[in-house]
Parts: sequence; structure tokens; C-alpha cells
Amino acid sequence: MAVDFSLYLISDRRQTGGRDLLEVIEAALSGGVQAVQLREKDLSTRELFTMGCALRKLTQRYQATLLINDRIDIALAVDADGVHLTEQSLEVEVARRLLGPDKLIGVSTHHVDRAVAVEQQGADFITFSPIYATPSKAAYGAPQGLDKLRNLCRQVSLPVIALGGINAQRRQAVLAAGASGCAVISAILTANDPCQAAKTLRF
Amino acid sequence: MAVDFSLYLISDRRQTGGRDLLEVIEAALSGGVQAVQLREKDLSTRELFTMGCALRKLTQRYQATLLINDRIDIALAVDADGVHLTEQSLEVEVARRLLGPDKLIGVSTHHVDRAVAVEQQGADFITFSPIYATPSKAAYGAPQGLDKLRNLCRQVSLPVIALGGINAQRRQAVLAAGASGCAVISAILTANDPCQAAKTLRF
Repeated sequence: MAVDFSLYLISDRRQTGGRDLLEVIEAALSGGVQAVQLREKDLSTRELFTMGCALRKLTQRYQATLLINDRIDIALAVDADGVHLTEQSLEVEVARRLLGPDKLIGVSTHHVDRAVAVEQQGADFITFSPIYATPSKAAYGAPQGLDKLRNLCRQVSLPVIALGGINAQRRQAVLAAGASGCAVISAILTANDPCQAAKTLRF
Repeated sequence: MAVDFSLYLISDRRQTGGRDLLEVIEAALSGGVQAVQLREKDLSTRELFTMGCALRKLTQRYQATLLINDRIDIALAVDADGVHLTEQSLEVEVARRLLGPDKLIGVSTHHVDRAVAVEQQGADFITFSPIYATPSKAAYGAPQGLDKLRNLCRQVSLPVIALGGINAQRRQAVLAAGASGCAVISAILTANDPCQAAKTLRF
């Protein structure tokens, strides 16, 4: 499954300034977002299912890819395209056994060794973060910077999606370093015009 | 799958008084607990998987049934015998689709209408609570009492497990009202001797 991860939007309903998350995501999809990750860790299973079903319809309408953070049960229940695993999630091998060969498995990485390991375990893509300083990724330590991104992209052959502090100005540098695309949260979700924000980030 | 739910232990690692949860559960299994539900809502997916794997080995050694609260992904990953769903979980039909025909689906109920509904949807057993007043079930309202338990057991044909404030003294009254068994949390987990507590509850 060849997936376009040029612009990968990670959800956070607390960053929309009170606007409906689905409406903001739809605007982003209309602006060129090709992949969406549902990542609302504090919702119940039933709430995640309801939101996942709505996002499944929305992403299908825009021919976009839907990933579910951490929760393989939700990914299967809403027939998402795959999951996005973190270090708090199941290991890639266990996830693959539950998901079967066709679903995508993405993994959050913060070190080249982990990236190499999860590629060997069968991950389909990774995010690498934080490239730049950003409040939401402060817990993961100092920014990786472009040199580490460039080095990591040489060490693995799977798509690497740069995450953390990416904006329209930084996009070209990140792609030049070897990233297949960019993942964003606040750059789109907090924008007054999420559609325009997506367009600006994409082109 | 005919399951013995005479004594169904629901986990809560905060009630063991600092003792290792797995050791307390093993003592309870040696005392006659036949079914264990892993219910530690605040653990990460990876932590639940680790604990679920350990409980799978333990329950197999004692030929006991293992249920996972809410998380179908964890149930599949550790090859538990089934899941235990609440009103915050996936619906029974969705759970059945993901789990296949052989896994058990239990459902927490607090009203006869819900019990009848989930039986029609294919649940394998239910808990009904709270039978008696108990701090951990205060959020679910006033105690149901034996009359409501008796009425509910007449309305459904699946096994009904009484939950909430059950102790050795109350066990016979609950079984006489039609329950197939009792579910307990604190009666075993807080006991100085969980093995003896299980024996006392069982016989």
C-alpha cells in the first residue's frame, strides 16, 4: 500500500480553540492533508469508536489515509488503514499479528536505533521527532535537528515523516534532509483557516 | 464454552495494600477463584499487555478463565478467553465481529432492560450490580437488592454474576436469587489471606 504522507495531520481536539474537531479536520482535508491520525488518548473506547467512524467516512470522501493512535481494537472496529504505535503501545510484531498483512503500522521514533529496529520488525513508516522545538514534544527532549533527520533517513528505507515544530517555512529543509513528508498538529489545528494552513504547508 | 463463574475476581491493583497484584491473584486462584478480569484502566497498552501475558500464564496454570476489561486488542494479543464490556466499551455486535465466535463476551449491567438487550446481541454472560452498597460501585446508584436480582435472573437465560458488596455471608442469598456466581474485588484483594478469602467465598 503506497501511501502519500506528504502532509500527515495528528488530531488533538484541545487545540481547535473550541471548534468542532471533525469540521477542522474536514477543512484540512479539503486543503490537501492526505493522512489523519486519530489521537485522543483520554476518550473512552466508545467515544473513540464514534469519532473513528466519523473520521473513516470523512477520510474516504477525501481519499485520505486514516491511522488510529495506539488502539488496534479501534483501528479494526472502524476499518482504519492502520495504527500508529508509540513506546507505550504493543510491539510491531504483536500489532502485525492482530492487524494482518494489509494494515499500515506506523511507529513514533526519537532515535535512529529505534527506527532501524522497527523497520526490521515490519513497520510501514515512522515519524521522527521532535525536529524543531515545540511545546507538545518537550517531553521528548531537545530538538533532533536536520542533521539527525538526514542521518536517520540514510539508515532506513521506509518513509520517514518529520514531526515537531514544522511550518511552511521549514518544510523544504525537512524534505531536503530526506523526509517523505511532514506531520503537524498545531500548525493546522490552531490555524484560523485550517484549509489554507494545509494548502500552505503542502505547496 | 461452559464457564464456571462461581467466583469471579475483578482486579484493582490499588486495593492490595501494596502487595504485588499477581501474587494476590495467584493466592486467590489457589483458593478457588475460577475467573479473573484484568481491569486496570489507567495502564498503558504496553503495561496492560505485560500484565495480561502474566495473568494468561497464571490462569492457565489454574485452569481459570481470563477476561480483559474493555480492551479487545489486549484480549486478542494475550489470547484471553474473552472481554468484559461496559457502557464505555464497544457494543456487543462490534466486539463479536472483532473477537470471532469463540471468545467470551461479558457485559456489566445495572438494569434489566440492558441485560435483555445484550443477551439478544450475543453476550455470553453479564454482571449485575451493585447488589449491596459498596464504595467502588457508589457511582452506579443505590443498591439493586435481591428482588431486582431475582427479577433479572428470570428475564434472561445467560449466566448472571452478582457484583457489589458480596461477602461470604451474603453469597447464599445471591445464589438463591438466581445468580450463577459472585464477582468480587475488595473481598479478596484487601484480605490478609486472599487464598482463604477465596475459599470462604466459594464454599
